[in-house]
Amino acid sequence: MASSRDLPIGVFDSGVGGLTVLRALRERLPAASFTYLGDTARLPYGTKSPGTVRRYAEQAAGVLIDRGVQALVIACNTASSAAVEHLQRRCAPIPVFGVIEPGAAAAVAASKRQEILVLATEGTVQGGAYERAIRALRPDAAVVSLPCPLFVAFAEEGWADGPIAEAVARRYIGPVLAEHPGIDTVVLGCTHFPVLRGAISVAAGPTRHLVDSAATTASEVFRRFGETLSGGISGDSRGEIRFLATDAPQRFARVGSVFLGEAIAPAAVELVDL
Amino acid sequence: MASSRDLPIGVFDSGVGGLTVLRALRERLPAASFTYLGDTARLPYGTKSPGTVRRYAEQAAGVLIDRGVQALVIACNTASSAAVEHLQRRCAPIPVFGVIEPGAAAAVAASKRQEILVLATEGTVQGGAYERAIRALRPDAAVVSLPCPLFVAFAEEGWADGPIAEAVARRYIGPVLAEHPGIDTVVLGCTHFPVLRGAISVAAGPTRHLVDSAATTASEVFRRFGETLSGGISGDSRGEIRFLATDAPQRFARVGSVFLGEAIAPAAVELVDL
Repeated sequence: MASSRDLPIGVFDSGVGGLTVLRALRERLPAASFTYLGDTARLPYGTKSPGTVRRYAEQAAGVLIDRGVQALVIACNTASSAAVEHLQRRCAPIPVFGVIEPGAAAAVAASKRQEILVLATEGTVQGGAYERAIRALRPDAAVVSLPCPLFVAFAEEGWADGPIAEAVARRYIGPVLAEHPGIDTVVLGCTHFPVLRGAISVAAGPTRHLVDSAATTASEVFRRFGETLSGGISGDSRGEIRFLATDAPQRFARVGSVFLGEAIAPAAVELVDL
Repeated sequence: MASSRDLPIGVFDSGVGGLTVLRALRERLPAASFTYLGDTARLPYGTKSPGTVRRYAEQAAGVLIDRGVQALVIACNTASSAAVEHLQRRCAPIPVFGVIEPGAAAAVAASKRQEILVLATEGTVQGGAYERAIRALRPDAAVVSLPCPLFVAFAEEGWADGPIAEAVARRYIGPVLAEHPGIDTVVLGCTHFPVLRGAISVAAGPTRHLVDSAATTASEVFRRFGETLSGGISGDSRGEIRFLATDAPQRFARVGSVFLGEAIAPAAVELVDL
């Protein structure tokens, strides 16, 4: 009989952005299986209100739990901000991970001056979840949050590098760093943003730390559940991924391959209704 | 008793982009009243599949008809492409206008060489509606369609002018014009794009015609229903606008003001559920 240890880890996001988290999870837990749900019919979450995002997140979690998962990762900053505590209560005893707390902890650990810039979507910035999570760890931290919605569009378009992406990053970040020169740590507070890491790094300058919430979340999942979640399979075998999308599976496969860093076959993406 | 001539014209879009059409309609029909619905909970339509967009459009039309309208304008290229004929059948005898046919007719009229470039969202390009509408008028026309999703993001962010917007426009349009130098007419085939008209014009060069589907749709509504839709009120009085949004009314008011070209008070935006 299969135990819950053999079940996949459920990962969900509004679209393809959370695939950067899945990519990081696979690097840490290569033998684990995953079921990834992209709510592509209703993306983006970043401009929607917290109540709407919470309802969507609950529906996405419901689909994954119905299919059987041993843990849930909310691979979306906006949904983590709006729904992580709600889902932790609703889904217990299944553990639910968000991306905010791991990113906040990594930022506090990296910052010497505790002056931190959080780059995120409008929804995440308005929700203030990073500021709360950082201040919960370091009440004296100075946090500036900046909505950068064009980064999402650039990542989806695959224009991650080059002079235009760098100009956009400089236009967003430059004025903030000029006003707050003490900032020494920049949080990539949206799962799309690791795709633009190079351009953001150029704009942030060589002396500042970039904290990638995808990588820090994967580390957190590994730290707390690494042995269980590796599924007990030999380290040589590679876990399976199933993909679910609520709309446009072909686009999901095409754009998603950039985010996952490996090819996704369109036929491997199942269309589901929430 | 109020006649149907006193009813407002219903206008809908996935979000704020259709406000460029409303702006053009108000210029042509200043005394008419309008009810504008932005389906902000589910934007963007441009990356969604035709079936999903058709369902959304039907729901939006239903809300407007329930409130009473004398005509419907689908102020969204993606929804026009997916749903105009469907809604014309479903909503009869209420007249339903899309933005595709007027834009196509204007492009054919403007182009001397019948070599036309259509800039649009991914959904509109994949649906091929502009190509069909142009070829229905001029079977010999050569049509190139180019998805420019970043224009939507730039318009929403309010980065409509300046070197970054121009660089984006050049990166999209430049290679196509180099390959098809005979193109003499460029259709702004998304309601967001008139906001970036300046940048697109720079990239297209001074000798090419830009066709704005918002303006051409307003002309079409005026041409066919101008006397009726002016509501019989004296030309001096300005019609009322009601705004409905399915999410985030504050953001709708803030970003929408840029598209409408006049201030929208957040309190004037009613939240509705579809």
